[in-house]
Amino acid sequence: MGTALDHDDWIAVDWGTSNLRIWVMRGTQIIARLSSDQGMGRITPHDYEAVLLDLVEPHLGAATTRVLVCGMAGSRQGWVEAPYTAVPCAPPSLATAVSVNTADPRLGVSILPGMKQGAPADVMRGEETQIAGYLAQKPHFEGAICLPGTHSKWAEIRHGAVTQFRTFMTGEVYALLSEASILRHSVGATCDLAAFDGAVEDMMRHPEMFSAELFGLRAGTLVADLGADAALGRLSGLMIGAELAGARTYWQGQNVALIGASRIGALYGRALAAQGVTADITSGEEIVVAGLSAAYHQTEAQK
Amino acid sequence: MGTALDHDDWIAVDWGTSNLRIWVMRGTQIIARLSSDQGMGRITPHDYEAVLLDLVEPHLGAATTRVLVCGMAGSRQGWVEAPYTAVPCAPPSLATAVSVNTADPRLGVSILPGMKQGAPADVMRGEETQIAGYLAQKPHFEGAICLPGTHSKWAEIRHGAVTQFRTFMTGEVYALLSEASILRHSVGATCDLAAFDGAVEDMMRHPEMFSAELFGLRAGTLVADLGADAALGRLSGLMIGAELAGARTYWQGQNVALIGASRIGALYGRALAAQGVTADITSGEEIVVAGLSAAYHQTEAQK
Repeated sequence: MGTALDHDDWIAVDWGTSNLRIWVMRGTQIIARLSSDQGMGRITPHDYEAVLLDLVEPHLGAATTRVLVCGMAGSRQGWVEAPYTAVPCAPPSLATAVSVNTADPRLGVSILPGMKQGAPADVMRGEETQIAGYLAQKPHFEGAICLPGTHSKWAEIRHGAVTQFRTFMTGEVYALLSEASILRHSVGATCDLAAFDGAVEDMMRHPEMFSAELFGLRAGTLVADLGADAALGRLSGLMIGAELAGARTYWQGQNVALIGASRIGALYGRALAAQGVTADITSGEEIVVAGLSAAYHQTEAQK
Repeated sequence: MGTALDHDDWIAVDWGTSNLRIWVMRGTQIIARLSSDQGMGRITPHDYEAVLLDLVEPHLGAATTRVLVCGMAGSRQGWVEAPYTAVPCAPPSLATAVSVNTADPRLGVSILPGMKQGAPADVMRGEETQIAGYLAQKPHFEGAICLPGTHSKWAEIRHGAVTQFRTFMTGEVYALLSEASILRHSVGATCDLAAFDGAVEDMMRHPEMFSAELFGLRAGTLVADLGADAALGRLSGLMIGAELAGARTYWQGQNVALIGASRIGALYGRALAAQGVTADITSGEEIVVAGLSAAYHQTEAQK
């Protein structure tokens, strides 16, 4: 049977707010991919085991299979709380994971902690595992790792540890503005790159004009022939430019790695390139699996 | 009959996106107040006359009564478009208003234009009438007028004219963040003023950290004992502080007049006071009536 589990088999899980992604692993190789929309936001703590079993049961043997989870499943509103580890520290491994009691003995579930910072107060859950994945591939990397998203993260990496990090609400504010604000009438479907570049530059020079430049998209539509694609390009540029202005101490004069989906990664890479920074861009999925695998095998090796 | 109209009687109307407010006037005196929630956002161009008549009919005589309207009713999606006048210029008067053809001959409706600016592109509709009202009371005022709101305006006033202005999306972004973003879980109902003051100062010094400071409210709730009232105070302070940082050229070293509802006006006044600026704070309702009255009588005087 092709799906019967081997002694080395285990299950890697990224359980976020909106999505659940599962990889059935043989050592460091992916042998099956599973996913659902049963993210933390849709389920209660009592649902997790059933949701997981529903997807992975065909892949379980008679013995216990180890399951390593990262992401919002470890938050207070998740499956079982996995308290944050405080920076500066290396990304968490299985040794610092929290065990979950499951009714089904075939599941041996552990949840990786997120990371926290005291001052300025900050938190991450899930991104620390992507950082672990990047560092597993580039163990000697020093510099900044940027993880664009709903809540974009910038992390400073020194000697394999996260020394500090900062979160920007870029993706969430972008979604609210483009879908729920008056700007929804102004923005089109295509991102005009010249308009994007101009807006990034405007924010690098005058970040204090962020909210005035936002209304300028509406006014530009009404009285200055600003097209819908240019408005979308400017909105994207204002959001990413404002983030880069705030994260300047992270990327200026540093090595920069970008971990994100291809479209958004390319826009961040373009904005950084305009500031003279060439970022190493990696897609997110392979990185989170590499991070879960690194966390899993690091502890296995320590046994 | 106490409500029968006199020769000097006319009707002042502020027709915004969300609300319709009407004042039946005898010269410059208010003799009746009427209002409804039938703002531009809820009605089509064909509805305006019926909505107006429904409220004012008991106050009409046999002859034509003049009705002067400001606000979004003059926008392209409104009753009849009243094109913007371009700054620099004085606030509009009845002479520049657009006449509306009504089916009912008892109504003689005119809509005041808004104001526009070419570069940076900007627009206002309704606020120019509040500015007219303030200048009617203080004709020699020179400096900046701030009108906090969904789309806050800062206008520079020289020799009775608006020379330039800028709009900040402060109120709309605040509403989206406090009601529809992850921050809705963090903010309470009371604005902690010490937290407000600190956040204003943070934005005056580091406006580029706006979106990181926003996420800091969520993180502060999770890992740094930030209370709900302090989170609301900081959110208000970040929004108003970011606006003041962007509007610095308007208020620094200038006379400043604030026109707004008492609660929000007090917060803006407090934030400006921390920067050494004592603002003259006036409530909005009396100002818009004064502006409509000034526009109405200025033209009457010119007849």
